[in-house]
Amino acid sequence: MDHLREIETDGISNPREISRLAIDIGGSLIKLVYFSRDSSDHEDPLNDCVGVSNGVNGRLHFAKFETTKINDCLKFISANKLLLGGLQNQENPTSDKSFIKATGGGAYKFSDLFKEKLGISLEKEDEMECLVTGANFLLKAVNHEAFTYLNGQKEFVQIDHNDLYPYLLVNIGSGVSMVKVDGDGKFERVSGTSVGGGTFWGLGKLLTKCQSFDELLELSHRGNNRVVDMLVGDISGGMDYSKIGLSSTAIASSFGRAISNNNELDDYKPEDVSRSLLRMISNNIGQISYLNALRFGLKRIFFGGFFIRGHSYTMETISVAVHFWSKGEAKAMFLRHEGFLGALGAFMSYDRHSLDDSMINQSVQIPVDASCGTDTNCNPLERDLNETESMQCRVYQA
Amino acid sequence: MDHLREIETDGISNPREISRLAIDIGGSLIKLVYFSRDSSDHEDPLNDCVGVSNGVNGRLHFAKFETTKINDCLKFISANKLLLGGLQNQENPTSDKSFIKATGGGAYKFSDLFKEKLGISLEKEDEMECLVTGANFLLKAVNHEAFTYLNGQKEFVQIDHNDLYPYLLVNIGSGVSMVKVDGDGKFERVSGTSVGGGTFWGLGKLLTKCQSFDELLELSHRGNNRVVDMLVGDISGGMDYSKIGLSSTAIASSFGRAISNNNELDDYKPEDVSRSLLRMISNNIGQISYLNALRFGLKRIFFGGFFIRGHSYTMETISVAVHFWSKGEAKAMFLRHEGFLGALGAFMSYDRHSLDDSMINQSVQIPVDASCGTDTNCNPLERDLNETESMQCRVYQA
Repeated sequence: MDHLREIETDGISNPREISRLAIDIGGSLIKLVYFSRDSSDHEDPLNDCVGVSNGVNGRLHFAKFETTKINDCLKFISANKLLLGGLQNQENPTSDKSFIKATGGGAYKFSDLFKEKLGISLEKEDEMECLVTGANFLLKAVNHEAFTYLNGQKEFVQIDHNDLYPYLLVNIGSGVSMVKVDGDGKFERVSGTSVGGGTFWGLGKLLTKCQSFDELLELSHRGNNRVVDMLVGDISGGMDYSKIGLSSTAIASSFGRAISNNNELDDYKPEDVSRSLLRMISNNIGQISYLNALRFGLKRIFFGGFFIRGHSYTMETISVAVHFWSKGEAKAMFLRHEGFLGALGAFMSYDRHSLDDSMINQSVQIPVDASCGTDTNCNPLERDLNETESMQCRVYQA
Repeated sequence: MDHLREIETDGISNPREISRLAIDIGGSLIKLVYFSRDSSDHEDPLNDCVGVSNGVNGRLHFAKFETTKINDCLKFISANKLLLGGLQNQENPTSDKSFIKATGGGAYKFSDLFKEKLGISLEKEDEMECLVTGANFLLKAVNHEAFTYLNGQKEFVQIDHNDLYPYLLVNIGSGVSMVKVDGDGKFERVSGTSVGGGTFWGLGKLLTKCQSFDELLELSHRGNNRVVDMLVGDISGGMDYSKIGLSSTAIASSFGRAISNNNELDDYKPEDVSRSLLRMISNNIGQISYLNALRFGLKRIFFGGFFIRGHSYTMETISVAVHFWSKGEAKAMFLRHEGFLGALGAFMSYDRHSLDDSMINQSVQIPVDASCGTDTNCNPLERDLNETESMQCRVYQA
């Protein structure tokens, strides 16, 4: 845990240095969370951050880049001056002590690149801890964050802060992590699977020649998985499988129909292949998640990570899987800011190590930098529910 | 359960009619089990089956066909006179009351075809019941049937008949069924997954253009999954994931490397693709199996079905998955006659409904036909352990 001590030391040695950017570098995607002050807001300029009392209005922004296009991300940070302005100390922008909080495996891998290109250090934060911090914050501070999705219906869930824990957090990135969460900072990674978003996109790319994850997801929307999957009814003719809980339209074998004819890959429509793939992976994640929730008696499973992207068929499949296997006992829930849990957790970690419990329990505060004593209080206004790219906030000094 | 009663009625109405063939028709494969008398054995001819006391030496044979090539199977049955001779009543071979025991979904689907081409009825037996009956028989009656496979070492397991139950039976066919077994005829299908042998073969066929399942399996033997899979180390550079139990060579995302370059399908070696696919599916089955074993406190998991085919890498992956997730608590075991559980169970079902408990407990008996009073006592001799196509037997009258 040496890097944690290093952060504190570093913070103390640069008491006026405040970063407004945090980053989560995964296997497939880089996620950024950063704060921008409203141009109309002129009160209490944070350039002089000591002594601010009323806060600053602004927005918390969310952006993502493919990890393979990390140079685009570096340019974006540079072009938008994300290392300067706002909450950043502008008097000493080129200090070689500059750092930003970073999480995800890539925070290690690309550390030298950030130093070389932007002259900043990446202060590494524990990946699971950031995920949990980000999820807890969203669940407690943001209205209309969590929702269920069944039978085409999205239903927002009002989270009772006193009845949030324990829950299972399933983060579906390139791979999948399953974390039992018992409180702020209280968690255990209990399981995971390598069959995740990277599998959907990797296999999908090989099978369909799609050029992007979103294109593949879009394709699946128009596909029919029955063309590629072997259904229970395909095997059995008229046999009744209902006594073992299977309907004739249940998938007996994902991609199993591909064995029973002479079709080659080119004979299949990419949309059908994409849909089978999506259903296979979503169903599998739902099943393994449920089995882990069952182990620990967890009734609620929150799904995050960039695999889902608000895609209705994905959520429906995961929900049905959880519902089916748990016989209705467990519930799948989704998060509007699903892809940014880790980045949000990293953003909040600027202060985390000196937070006390009472501060955590207030939970509506995003600490930005303890050394400056400022906090970000997110009170998102009613907004377009499809808009997940930014969130209105108010930053104020504690 | 009407068809069960029908079988008994039918048996009673044709007391001298004995079938020596049973069949299991799955989504991908048809499995046959049939008995042949040694040509050197002339004692106690079963043509006159009433009054036989010393038995007949012979072999129990195992054969398989692709379900898509069902006509080859029909020809095989016909050419080898499997509906006649041996234990069959030769005086009345064309009786329209002829039937053979059949299980698997295809027993329904292809019923008319068997009637039309061979003039026989398929007497349907419950699929799960046949699987369990077949597995219990093998585990109790056949030496050197079950084995573990870890670190390249195959180790036969001596099964204590008094300590066999409960166990989890995982049958990996086109899809996967997971059955909790508490005794003969005492079982429950507790889970399953659509990601099974049909997925390996279906996806593998689309990705590699292999012409057969065995060719695809053979390919995987020479492949390197690191070319296609995203490993923990690929994401993280030097980050230490050991505290969450992951090594840098663990797979973070199956097929996840395919997203990070511009390679198309043709740029990958089929053997690498095949290996990643095999590992993904084997690992997934191992994980879901373990999670289900955990639910019911089962320490032993027996894997059957035609997916495995004695393939070392498949068994190794499943074993490692079970070992990893259970922290060594649960054990994966394999069966030499893995693919024939259902067919064996159907073979034994000729008499099952009139068996009493004491007979089941003796367990070394394969009842062939209660109406004739004959039983098959399998005492397999020491034999080539790779030979699973037939098993030496002695059939005698109870």
